[in-house]
Amino acid sequence: MAVGPGTLPEFFPITGVELGIASAGMKKPGRKDIVLFSLAEGTQVAGIFTRNQFCAAPVTLSRKHLAAAMPRYLLINTGNANAGTGERGLADAAVCCEALAAAAGVDGQQVLPFSTGVIGEPLPVAKIVAALPDALADTRVDRWAEAANGIMTTDTRPKGASVQVDLGGHTVCISGISKGAGMIRPNMATMLGFIATDARIAPDVLQSLASELGEQSFNRITIDGDTSTNDACMLMASGCYGGPEITADSPLLAPLKDALRQVYMDLAHAIVRDGEGATKFVTIEVNHAVTVNEALDVAYTVAHSPLVKTALFASDPNWGRILAAVGRAGVEGLDLNALEIYLGDVCLVSNGGRADDYSEERGKAVMNQEEITIRIDLKRGAVSETVWTCDFSHDYVTINADYRS
Amino acid sequence: MAVGPGTLPEFFPITGVELGIASAGMKKPGRKDIVLFSLAEGTQVAGIFTRNQFCAAPVTLSRKHLAAAMPRYLLINTGNANAGTGERGLADAAVCCEALAAAAGVDGQQVLPFSTGVIGEPLPVAKIVAALPDALADTRVDRWAEAANGIMTTDTRPKGASVQVDLGGHTVCISGISKGAGMIRPNMATMLGFIATDARIAPDVLQSLASELGEQSFNRITIDGDTSTNDACMLMASGCYGGPEITADSPLLAPLKDALRQVYMDLAHAIVRDGEGATKFVTIEVNHAVTVNEALDVAYTVAHSPLVKTALFASDPNWGRILAAVGRAGVEGLDLNALEIYLGDVCLVSNGGRADDYSEERGKAVMNQEEITIRIDLKRGAVSETVWTCDFSHDYVTINADYRS
Repeated sequence: MAVGPGTLPEFFPITGVELGIASAGMKKPGRKDIVLFSLAEGTQVAGIFTRNQFCAAPVTLSRKHLAAAMPRYLLINTGNANAGTGERGLADAAVCCEALAAAAGVDGQQVLPFSTGVIGEPLPVAKIVAALPDALADTRVDRWAEAANGIMTTDTRPKGASVQVDLGGHTVCISGISKGAGMIRPNMATMLGFIATDARIAPDVLQSLASELGEQSFNRITIDGDTSTNDACMLMASGCYGGPEITADSPLLAPLKDALRQVYMDLAHAIVRDGEGATKFVTIEVNHAVTVNEALDVAYTVAHSPLVKTALFASDPNWGRILAAVGRAGVEGLDLNALEIYLGDVCLVSNGGRADDYSEERGKAVMNQEEITIRIDLKRGAVSETVWTCDFSHDYVTINADYRS
Repeated sequence: MAVGPGTLPEFFPITGVELGIASAGMKKPGRKDIVLFSLAEGTQVAGIFTRNQFCAAPVTLSRKHLAAAMPRYLLINTGNANAGTGERGLADAAVCCEALAAAAGVDGQQVLPFSTGVIGEPLPVAKIVAALPDALADTRVDRWAEAANGIMTTDTRPKGASVQVDLGGHTVCISGISKGAGMIRPNMATMLGFIATDARIAPDVLQSLASELGEQSFNRITIDGDTSTNDACMLMASGCYGGPEITADSPLLAPLKDALRQVYMDLAHAIVRDGEGATKFVTIEVNHAVTVNEALDVAYTVAHSPLVKTALFASDPNWGRILAAVGRAGVEGLDLNALEIYLGDVCLVSNGGRADDYSEERGKAVMNQEEITIRIDLKRGAVSETVWTCDFSHDYVTINADYRS
């Protein structure tokens, strides 16, 4: 199951960023499970990685390589996460990077590895290395849709976004793909995202954009509250668009950021829409909190409540479960009598209890929709935060009780 | 579904504590949904209540009455939680207390009200008041089993425990009942517990026992991470056993506490065994943590992970999911290379990855059992904590997607 239309957009090619695809036979014979990004010299790369303390070997190595050199290749495999694999996992990931570097004539540190799949199995290095010539043989700027398919694991559909924006008379293109459907929660999840643009962006600005936009999008989605060991979201800027370098004080930064934000949001929301077993796309807005943390505590407590999520699956406007979740979010001194809770435009809770004009019919009418907004107005401060999640269905249990078999 | 045998024990009667049962027709006609505890004059009562900030009206009133007077009656209804009902809810609960007090010849403040059921519907006061004469007509010491049935909501079976212990030549009896199956997590959940003894216990000691034993038992269980608005666990001591008052420095306190702990643990574990949709009873032990909080953070993160819980349902020894949960528990500086994770006696993780002598067959053999212990040795401090939980099955979704319909 998944929510909303699942078609890929038309991808704008990014000059300087070519994609290669191959099959290493990691899980199913013939399945495309290797994706390469080949970056023109001078391409700037920034990223954010999982905050899970037991990050996977490729995450450790990507962080290290990114700090040491200018990347020329991103090497992504599905079917195996190379996580929980100890020292051997690090050595295995390094072997893959070296093999690609040798074939492409760059340094091993110029390759960033990414893996997603089952945790704890040794990486099938020989299979990956054997597939590299195929992946390198036909790298092109027009293979984004194939790449979006190539990085899928339990995803039911590929995820992509692409926009163009005019920056001072120069057209900038931004394209991105992402993957992820379970073990999703802020701090990255089993989620990979790759966004590229042909804009020329100063390195410090690129890292700020990667951090800030990642925080507002991928780090605000949750499917099941689990954070994976492998997540990464990379932002690449080839600089080929023909315009000036965009620095922190450039007037072009704001429109660029807006365009990038659109791609980040679309890719992050696409993961929620394809959440394991999802039948609803749910926006949880918390308004008038005192701090960001208290807004997020309330939003995530509601978003993670299995009782709220099963009520959403049942299209049941069970506002008592939402109220109980807000009450246990750990925010000191909440005033139940001031608080208001809305489902879409329908007020559920006000004056300490069910809203006077609430009726089950009105609540049910909102709940029957495929896209639902729960708005919680704490009425005590000036901070608002939004997170996105999905419901909790029978299919979630089926998918996760059967994944390895 | 439920885990393990579900029969009630033989209850030892508690002199000074009588039980009355009646049907108010709250949800189903004829169903026993009102339970009364009638306490002999001089009975000491202590308790712990939900930490949900939006506690229900009966919780607010019970706290107030307990502080103001010596309770003579506990009045429990199922079918309606009287939560999210604002000022009217408080007034409704007070009316029920006053009606019982008038019929029994005590003060309204000597009645403690408890409610469990649907949130946000007005309490059907007239139905409850009409049932009180029936409940008062035949209060007896031998109605514990009926009472255990009378307080059930989504429970699939009644829960009770009873022990006798010799204290300095005097036999002390302890009996208790509990209810709860969903919206269960530390800090009380939709859980009610009533434990009575004929021991004579100093009031300050009684409150200490209620707090400490509640913390070690009911506040260490979790089914779905949700905390209800209505939870309460009461400890009553009638003092009729014939021995001396047990004070903080009495040598009889230790054996009394051990006996009470057994009843608290049995009642708390019975709730997990009857967790909504439960097919496994899971003990999560965290050893060698630096602080209680870090041990509990790790234990609850594993216990609440939907991915771990669905793997338990599938009897899948998917240790990568356990490892990922430990890694995102928010404990700073965990050393993955020192850490060990056991499933029963089988070591899953050591030296930073899958244990050398681990095999799927050995893991699967433990997972196939109905009672499973996951032990996580952090190898960094001297603190151990244990929590109890159950798995996450299709039936959990079914139960909670259909509860109100």
